[in-house]
Amino acid sequence: MKPVSEITKRKPWVAWLIFLGTVVIVFILGLLASSIIERRSESKVYFQMVSEIPEWEPRNEVWGRNFPREYESYESTLDTSFLSKYGGSGTRDYLEEHPEMVVMWAGYAFSREYKQARGHYYAINDIRQTLRTDVPQPSTCWTCKSPDVPRLMNQMGVENFYKGKWTDLGSEVVNNIGCQDCHDPKTMNLRITRPALIEAYQRMGKDINKATHQEMRSLVCAQCHVEYYFKGENKYLTFPWDNGFTVEAMEAYYDSVKHVDFVHALSKAPMLKGQHPDFEQYTTGVHFDRGVACADCHMPYKRDGGMKYTDHKIQSPLANISGSCVVCHREGEEKLMENVVSRQNKIYELRRIAEKNIARLHIEAKTAWDNGATEQEMEPVLTLIRHAQWRWDYVAAGNSMGFHTPAEALRILGTSIQKAQEGRLLLNSILISHGVKTPIQMPDLSNREKAQAFIGLDMPALHKSKNEFINTVLPEWTKKAVEREGQMIQIQ
Amino acid sequence: MKPVSEITKRKPWVAWLIFLGTVVIVFILGLLASSIIERRSESKVYFQMVSEIPEWEPRNEVWGRNFPREYESYESTLDTSFLSKYGGSGTRDYLEEHPEMVVMWAGYAFSREYKQARGHYYAINDIRQTLRTDVPQPSTCWTCKSPDVPRLMNQMGVENFYKGKWTDLGSEVVNNIGCQDCHDPKTMNLRITRPALIEAYQRMGKDINKATHQEMRSLVCAQCHVEYYFKGENKYLTFPWDNGFTVEAMEAYYDSVKHVDFVHALSKAPMLKGQHPDFEQYTTGVHFDRGVACADCHMPYKRDGGMKYTDHKIQSPLANISGSCVVCHREGEEKLMENVVSRQNKIYELRRIAEKNIARLHIEAKTAWDNGATEQEMEPVLTLIRHAQWRWDYVAAGNSMGFHTPAEALRILGTSIQKAQEGRLLLNSILISHGVKTPIQMPDLSNREKAQAFIGLDMPALHKSKNEFINTVLPEWTKKAVEREGQMIQIQ
Repeated sequence: MKPVSEITKRKPWVAWLIFLGTVVIVFILGLLASSIIERRSESKVYFQMVSEIPEWEPRNEVWGRNFPREYESYESTLDTSFLSKYGGSGTRDYLEEHPEMVVMWAGYAFSREYKQARGHYYAINDIRQTLRTDVPQPSTCWTCKSPDVPRLMNQMGVENFYKGKWTDLGSEVVNNIGCQDCHDPKTMNLRITRPALIEAYQRMGKDINKATHQEMRSLVCAQCHVEYYFKGENKYLTFPWDNGFTVEAMEAYYDSVKHVDFVHALSKAPMLKGQHPDFEQYTTGVHFDRGVACADCHMPYKRDGGMKYTDHKIQSPLANISGSCVVCHREGEEKLMENVVSRQNKIYELRRIAEKNIARLHIEAKTAWDNGATEQEMEPVLTLIRHAQWRWDYVAAGNSMGFHTPAEALRILGTSIQKAQEGRLLLNSILISHGVKTPIQMPDLSNREKAQAFIGLDMPALHKSKNEFINTVLPEWTKKAVEREGQMIQIQ
Repeated sequence: MKPVSEITKRKPWVAWLIFLGTVVIVFILGLLASSIIERRSESKVYFQMVSEIPEWEPRNEVWGRNFPREYESYESTLDTSFLSKYGGSGTRDYLEEHPEMVVMWAGYAFSREYKQARGHYYAINDIRQTLRTDVPQPSTCWTCKSPDVPRLMNQMGVENFYKGKWTDLGSEVVNNIGCQDCHDPKTMNLRITRPALIEAYQRMGKDINKATHQEMRSLVCAQCHVEYYFKGENKYLTFPWDNGFTVEAMEAYYDSVKHVDFVHALSKAPMLKGQHPDFEQYTTGVHFDRGVACADCHMPYKRDGGMKYTDHKIQSPLANISGSCVVCHREGEEKLMENVVSRQNKIYELRRIAEKNIARLHIEAKTAWDNGATEQEMEPVLTLIRHAQWRWDYVAAGNSMGFHTPAEALRILGTSIQKAQEGRLLLNSILISHGVKTPIQMPDLSNREKAQAFIGLDMPALHKSKNEFINTVLPEWTKKAVEREGQMIQIQ
């Protein structure tokens, strides 16, 4: 056995090879180390605060000075061009697309106007402009619209915040949904600022303070993207979660507390209006099951040089499939889009069946009342109407056309269809027994205008009164707010 | 710069280190090479045929001599213990669990007996024993039961095979579903032996010979696990795929050719009986979309020493989650089982709603006829019954409780519920107009016996006649078959 020294003596190029190999490896290691050090130092720089943020600071611009990347991406939610792929720029008119919904909400402000949501940056403007706030609304309606809310709750007390009129706080709630809603201004940790979520957790026997960071990346969203109702005289914002997150659990809760959002103008049924139970839907879906948070899909991580940060352009993951879905799903963007749309189409099909049934049901119920049906006869029908529409709404009011939980959404719509048709069966007998020939003639519901005329809405009058409000009240609100805060108010 | 020789001269241990490192690496490489060589030679040995297999050899044992691993795993389908987790050993009585199905199939042999399938090894025995073959059946019924079928089709011609009586071929079709059904005896390549699939592909303008190997790993299953019907006088086995694989496409096909499987004994509706459209369901699901074949989940690869082979214990992937699902899904077995069961439970919920509606519908239709309803009045009702039950059956007759395509299954059941209830609405008016008070009283359908008594089945007489057949005809069949083939017949 020869020692290496002998080999290298006879073949000196072997020694040079070993030497050169070492040089190359060391050089690459050096590059790697330098890159790591550079990126570390870069991230350090950007976590240093340029200026301190006071507690309850509602102005997103003030926060933005310290976090330019997050703020810029937040500001880019102004761009709603993605929505235009789906038929508009946040001005898509759901009532025009589904005139049956006008009938389903007869007697409730949603029958006046219901448009596609445009995102957090438009929150204040859109609630000011909608015809839905032209009826007297409680100040609870502001709760999810602005980082001014935690400030005001802190000043006024939570109960006092809820129990006023919506118009009372018009000059106070002026900054769009933003930083303060989810972050602690000292540590930037995620933070729950809305009491309703904390209280719902307490009633379920859970301590929200024990939530992990990954859970918080969904829970900050669950402050608002949930089902809720305004409880009692004081319109105390409450989540109906005491029995669980499923559609049946919340239905049982609402029935047990006899909650009624509105009495239907046609059928006289004691109705529930679903909000946007996105969080509840999500907890029954596979993404939740696999530990994926809301932010993983709606606010995926981005890189800018050495900085990894969360994209604050909160939007549909379909607008950024490569940044969100593709992180886990190795299929191409087109394929993934197809997969989503195919599920949504199935859900849409059952949704349409359900809403046509339910609109009919309200109209048939009105005909029954008009022809002398008794309360005793109608009682089981009204319960079926309440439950059928609630189940439809649980899916329809969500922001994903059921994609947060496709199988569950389809199951729920199946039960909605069944309940609506059971109601129509009962009504058919009631109608005939009161001398009405069935099936009754349906009104023309081929567009929004016709449906609104059918339920007796005077739309020109509503628009006129809203315009007066816009021209007289809104400038006052803005003036007062600017006096208080300076020129930074973000209303778009 | 010093050459290595100088370093090793001063520090001889460096040379030894390099030398020893090399020794270890070379040793490991040697082990790897040896293992590869060993495994290669092992697989070579096992691909050599011990004895040649004649064309159209139906006896699985003859094939098994050459492929002991595949044959052993095929034989182990005799073990149905997995099924017992789900309430039986292949003797689970679906009619007992869902007595409504007795009503839904009144006038059709399925109302007599419908039990859980026990797997390929029991194919011959189970078709011989079931009360469904006690009515005169065409020999087409044998088509999927045995590798004797390609042999007979080759002898008799395909048309002649189909057009006889089921009892004509009793002594000929005696080997359980096995090797010849899917494999070429010379090359062991996958091969389509049933003409119905080839013909269906031709009518769709596709050439099945161009299918890839991965496609063939589903297509051999699609010879039988599909929707089909017996066309015309000669009962020619035909797949209704001309318009596509969806439930609506096949419904449209059946309507266009005016196919009727049976006229319902109660409602007089022109019914369709769904077979087991597992392949069609699968083509609308995500596993197909991702290129997964039937065999990937139902016959996953196994290892035995150096041999990788396909597990021929064809069964539910839930019986072998670690061998099938976990290959792609990194979640634990328990979690995956939960995920499957949760989807199946949702599907089951809508399925139960649908079947209760449809059973009622048949009974209400009978009451309408009994009270003088006219054909003209009933015609739209009968169409709704036909379509509602077909859609229910598309899901219910499948072998996965909809898991092959959960969202699609739920969508289909939603439309089934809608159609059944539309039918009941029409019937309600018809019944009332003929002086019948609604809702009509339902019979007691709390178990199979009561449901069978309600539709007028004399079960003791049926069992008696079946027993005679078992005791007199079956021994004859077996005797003739043994004379032809020797002692190897596999009937269990």
